[in-house]
Amino acid sequence: MDEFGIIATYFAPLAGEGAFGLKDDAALLPARPGQDLIITTDTVTEGVDFFAFDPSADIARKALRVNLSDLAAKGAVPAHYLLNLSLPHTITPDWLAGFADGLAQDQREFGISLLGGDTGATDGPLSIAVTAFGFVPQGRMIRRNGAKVGDAVYVTGTIGDSGGGLAIFKREKHSLNDADRDTLIARYRVPQPPVAFAEQLRAIAHASVDISDGLIADLGHIASASGVHIAVIGERVPLSAPLRTLWGDEVLLRAVTAGDDYQIAFTAPPGLRGPFSEIGVVEQGSVATLLVRGKEFLIKKPGYRHF
Amino acid sequence: MDEFGIIATYFAPLAGEGAFGLKDDAALLPARPGQDLIITTDTVTEGVDFFAFDPSADIARKALRVNLSDLAAKGAVPAHYLLNLSLPHTITPDWLAGFADGLAQDQREFGISLLGGDTGATDGPLSIAVTAFGFVPQGRMIRRNGAKVGDAVYVTGTIGDSGGGLAIFKREKHSLNDADRDTLIARYRVPQPPVAFAEQLRAIAHASVDISDGLIADLGHIASASGVHIAVIGERVPLSAPLRTLWGDEVLLRAVTAGDDYQIAFTAPPGLRGPFSEIGVVEQGSVATLLVRGKEFLIKKPGYRHF
Repeated sequence: MDEFGIIATYFAPLAGEGAFGLKDDAALLPARPGQDLIITTDTVTEGVDFFAFDPSADIARKALRVNLSDLAAKGAVPAHYLLNLSLPHTITPDWLAGFADGLAQDQREFGISLLGGDTGATDGPLSIAVTAFGFVPQGRMIRRNGAKVGDAVYVTGTIGDSGGGLAIFKREKHSLNDADRDTLIARYRVPQPPVAFAEQLRAIAHASVDISDGLIADLGHIASASGVHIAVIGERVPLSAPLRTLWGDEVLLRAVTAGDDYQIAFTAPPGLRGPFSEIGVVEQGSVATLLVRGKEFLIKKPGYRHF
Repeated sequence: MDEFGIIATYFAPLAGEGAFGLKDDAALLPARPGQDLIITTDTVTEGVDFFAFDPSADIARKALRVNLSDLAAKGAVPAHYLLNLSLPHTITPDWLAGFADGLAQDQREFGISLLGGDTGATDGPLSIAVTAFGFVPQGRMIRRNGAKVGDAVYVTGTIGDSGGGLAIFKREKHSLNDADRDTLIARYRVPQPPVAFAEQLRAIAHASVDISDGLIADLGHIASASGVHIAVIGERVPLSAPLRTLWGDEVLLRAVTAGDDYQIAFTAPPGLRGPFSEIGVVEQGSVATLLVRGKEFLIKKPGYRHF
């Protein structure tokens, strides 16, 4: 099957408004007066962000969700996405069918549709670039640069689970039961970005970021953009029971540097309650640091680097 | 240098309005009431669309221009682009500096700016996905499906030159002088999409497509989408002197199937004059065919396929 057949068979059924059934040179987004369009793009690559043996539906959902987390962190409601696929020649119809099923499942879950993309063959690893589009009311995107001294630092979900799943895939020794092992692997394969939280976030957050590089590294982006110091109180970082079992005494340090969480870290006035944990404070200074038993803990490699 | 250093050094200087200096999770496009946003994306890959020994400034410009041709074909004026880079570990600072220079040069030439993207490392070939954004007055995008029986078929520029340049790189024997050889190679390396023609095109075209797969293949897309037959009169296809010298008696058939032209083919009322050639007619029926001396010429492989 050539790329035209692949597009017509697997992807055209996913196309929504403005995509023209993937049968034109370009897609169309009408202006929504009073709304800003928010655009983000991230590539996932075999061997880095997923493994060849992962179910292709999960790979599809991860490729989407690592972008939906960026939109959510900006307070945007997702609407559409583009898909740039570089497929090894060995890809099978079954793989493609599963991949399209994964996309369809998340389209329903998040109310989004496929707008366009391109499909090509590669001699290299499978690579999937998704570009996601969402909307916020005009001027209401949450930036990284709005953190204020006196803010508290909050985070959604639990931290480090995806990194735990990856460690298991990398054959790290562990004594987890099957259910706990599967929980962590599932978090690696299919991130759970708090997409529905975006509107509430917009109402409270001064600054926000999605956690992809690692909690401390990404809070460092807020600290740097806002010109503040962010102190994370280690004891308050939300950690799952399976991850505590997996990593024991090392759990905190590994969790806050693992990355691949796709949860949201944000600053807002202190004392708020909601689907998030209060984990730190914004002070005068710069950079983000981790406190353990009240003392600053030096992190040599705060997050993931591609190079 | 890690990806943060690469982005800060080479790409942040290219960032324009809405890109936040490439220092946030997402970019922002304000609504332009009365305008539709037109979006297209295409990936270029080493070994397929360019060679590792091509100047990196030319690679950058090709990656951009294969997208600008799609916008032009839709009647859209380009505004912004995203860049997804998969870089081999062997990439050098000089290569990156040249690449950024090529982007800067085309940003000035076409009045566009960088909106965002991502940069990762790959064990595979260098791959560059560009997503381009342009605007048309509301409802005025030129589709593929508007061709009418009685229309003439037009094409901008000359056809097949890029394919000629590629053939030379593939060591096809030839007797071209250096200037002619360089002309064809330049057309392969840096396409010349008629970006400034978009507004004029919008005023006259019923259907339009950019020529990437091959003249006959791409006109076949218009024929299929519009439910018409398109007959291209071979003798009228504009061919450059260097390409005629390179390919001799085979020039027409090779030129109309070579692809990689990034010119625009469109249908409009017959007898129009402008920066284009009238090359065929729209009739009742389906598919696109090539006539040579008035007879239909069977084309077995009308255009490029990735698989």
